[in-house]
Amino acid sequence: MNVTVRGRTQPCRTVAFNRAHNAVRLIEQRLLPHEFKIVATKNFRATAAAIRDMTVRGAGAIGATAAYGLAQGALAFPGSNLLKFRRHIETVYQTLKAARPTAVDPVNAMNDVRTAMRAGRTVAEKQSLALAAAEEFASADVRHCEAIGRHGAQLIRNGMNILTHCNAGWLAFVDVGSATAPLYAAQAQGKKFHVFCDETRPRSQGATLTAWELAQQKISHQVIVDNAAGHLMQRGEVDLVIVGSDRTLGRTGEVANKIGTYTKAVLAKRHGIPFYVAIPLSTIDWNLKRGLDIPIEERDESEVLGAWGTISTPHSALRTPQPARRVYVRVANPTSGARNQGFDVTPPELITGIITPAGIFKPQELWRQRRRLGHAD
Amino acid sequence: MNVTVRGRTQPCRTVAFNRAHNAVRLIEQRLLPHEFKIVATKNFRATAAAIRDMTVRGAGAIGATAAYGLAQGALAFPGSNLLKFRRHIETVYQTLKAARPTAVDPVNAMNDVRTAMRAGRTVAEKQSLALAAAEEFASADVRHCEAIGRHGAQLIRNGMNILTHCNAGWLAFVDVGSATAPLYAAQAQGKKFHVFCDETRPRSQGATLTAWELAQQKISHQVIVDNAAGHLMQRGEVDLVIVGSDRTLGRTGEVANKIGTYTKAVLAKRHGIPFYVAIPLSTIDWNLKRGLDIPIEERDESEVLGAWGTISTPHSALRTPQPARRVYVRVANPTSGARNQGFDVTPPELITGIITPAGIFKPQELWRQRRRLGHAD
Repeated sequence: MNVTVRGRTQPCRTVAFNRAHNAVRLIEQRLLPHEFKIVATKNFRATAAAIRDMTVRGAGAIGATAAYGLAQGALAFPGSNLLKFRRHIETVYQTLKAARPTAVDPVNAMNDVRTAMRAGRTVAEKQSLALAAAEEFASADVRHCEAIGRHGAQLIRNGMNILTHCNAGWLAFVDVGSATAPLYAAQAQGKKFHVFCDETRPRSQGATLTAWELAQQKISHQVIVDNAAGHLMQRGEVDLVIVGSDRTLGRTGEVANKIGTYTKAVLAKRHGIPFYVAIPLSTIDWNLKRGLDIPIEERDESEVLGAWGTISTPHSALRTPQPARRVYVRVANPTSGARNQGFDVTPPELITGIITPAGIFKPQELWRQRRRLGHAD
Repeated sequence: MNVTVRGRTQPCRTVAFNRAHNAVRLIEQRLLPHEFKIVATKNFRATAAAIRDMTVRGAGAIGATAAYGLAQGALAFPGSNLLKFRRHIETVYQTLKAARPTAVDPVNAMNDVRTAMRAGRTVAEKQSLALAAAEEFASADVRHCEAIGRHGAQLIRNGMNILTHCNAGWLAFVDVGSATAPLYAAQAQGKKFHVFCDETRPRSQGATLTAWELAQQKISHQVIVDNAAGHLMQRGEVDLVIVGSDRTLGRTGEVANKIGTYTKAVLAKRHGIPFYVAIPLSTIDWNLKRGLDIPIEERDESEVLGAWGTISTPHSALRTPQPARRVYVRVANPTSGARNQGFDVTPPELITGIITPAGIFKPQELWRQRRRLGHAD
């Protein structure tokens, strides 16, 4: 998507590969929305570090980063000894895998690359097959998001007000995003609409990342507190809800996503507002039989008890005026604790449709449509 | 209620009068929850300033503060000239009224005091009647909150998890509070329960004030983000919801309260969880015929785009270690705007009952019970 830096607008992917320097090029997401910066990781260990320290985050984005990281490691191998090359690749693979041990996307992406490399007979052939496979993984991620956008854009009409929650945007993928894809496609079709971004406490990805993305794309939008959606729906100011998903159960149509998604679905149902979930096929879990079995991450209570932001007003205690830097402020009563669960589960009866690269389906249809949705049995 | 300062626990009202010094004694609420401090306003102009600058806030609390301020002004009058005294009282009245021009409680409270003063024939008699009337206004506020507590405590059983939203606590009244009154009464009865405090973005009164109150009272509680209530209800972890109200329509049973209240009511209904609103009689509006006519305050977008808190970690740019001080941090994307509506309206069909000093009523019953509820016709 487009990024405007110092008045100049240019397209920019979240993750890309620089062949001349054998480097992975990433948007430094920890600085957003207050600063835009591209970093280049010079070797596979630096790429693993970027995954680990959250320079890059989001399922599609870390998948592509790991795939590129594996190719980068392969390309850096000197000489032509196949045995030593194989050992080297194993080290690269394990290093990248260990960077985010619970994530499934880096593993799937690297397995694609490894499989492709088998067809090569020499180190040089394997190296070039590895890069081609990594590029294909990244391109496929973009194509799938674009397909989500094509299907989802049909739901958007001129003048609509659309509610989003959290960030399932292009920053979470190689480009385009899932929940944001229909917005960008509709914009490309010349449609005019307005987006309400739930701030999405406690980590505020809606207020920071989604709002930043929409501002870069010059899409009309406003940030709202998570408390406000009900009131806006009651007053007829929301026409459509689109969210992403961290895990969608193929057998039941239940959707696990950022905490607060369920609440928005309940509100949308009450007000007869269509509620859609946009997902790449990789987030469908074909095994789990009920949403209650989805593990809900308990995160540190400090996220709930405070907030991260920049001090924008002059701070008399500072030695000299500083560039905006992120600080953590404690908001809550200092002697109180918090409960902090990262996700909730939305049942299928609250979901109007699941927007996938293969089309829009009722959540209850996923299992019947499993062949078209990439189920591998 | 109780406050513990440097290990010593003692009872403390939000608003009180110090006769020896002719001063109004207030909890400095702008420092909470990070610092507890009592301030004494030395004359009626200082009392008006404390109302204006939010040292004291909350309907009952500013009502009592204005009543005390009028008595304070009367007591400060030197001499016995009745005409000059009357002119002086008019100045005091107008000064206190102008401190929060849209609030109804200070005006009602001061009218009580003025009416009582009429029975005095001398300045001295009027002065002592003014103070007696102000004390009676404050005592009545406490009695009404205690009555809300007695009725509401019947709803609380051992082992319950109770959800609250925003702060309708003792800090908003002279003591005890409205939504918190049933909690304090149940605690006094020896009941054990746990409270989830919605943080209540954007101003976070739940995370700051309600959490502080409950911590002072040693009531088990946790702060949660506003996004979490739906998930907790879905998992059976909420048994009862009690909130306050800024305005309750006596003719329809509709309840205007802090933004997000409506959402919690919709969620409670879906999960069959009792949803109660605790109110003093002064918040019942007997005139308005529909909730849509309640004006919804549009507040500054900076509240949504950032947060107030204290920097608790060492801040390398600081000259010397500073005591915790409140700063505003910008959380959201710097080029995005926000929508910030302060209140929403909950319809009666989502409300299990209204807890008043006169008992618990269905919202639809208010009009029929208007005599018992202080309707003056």
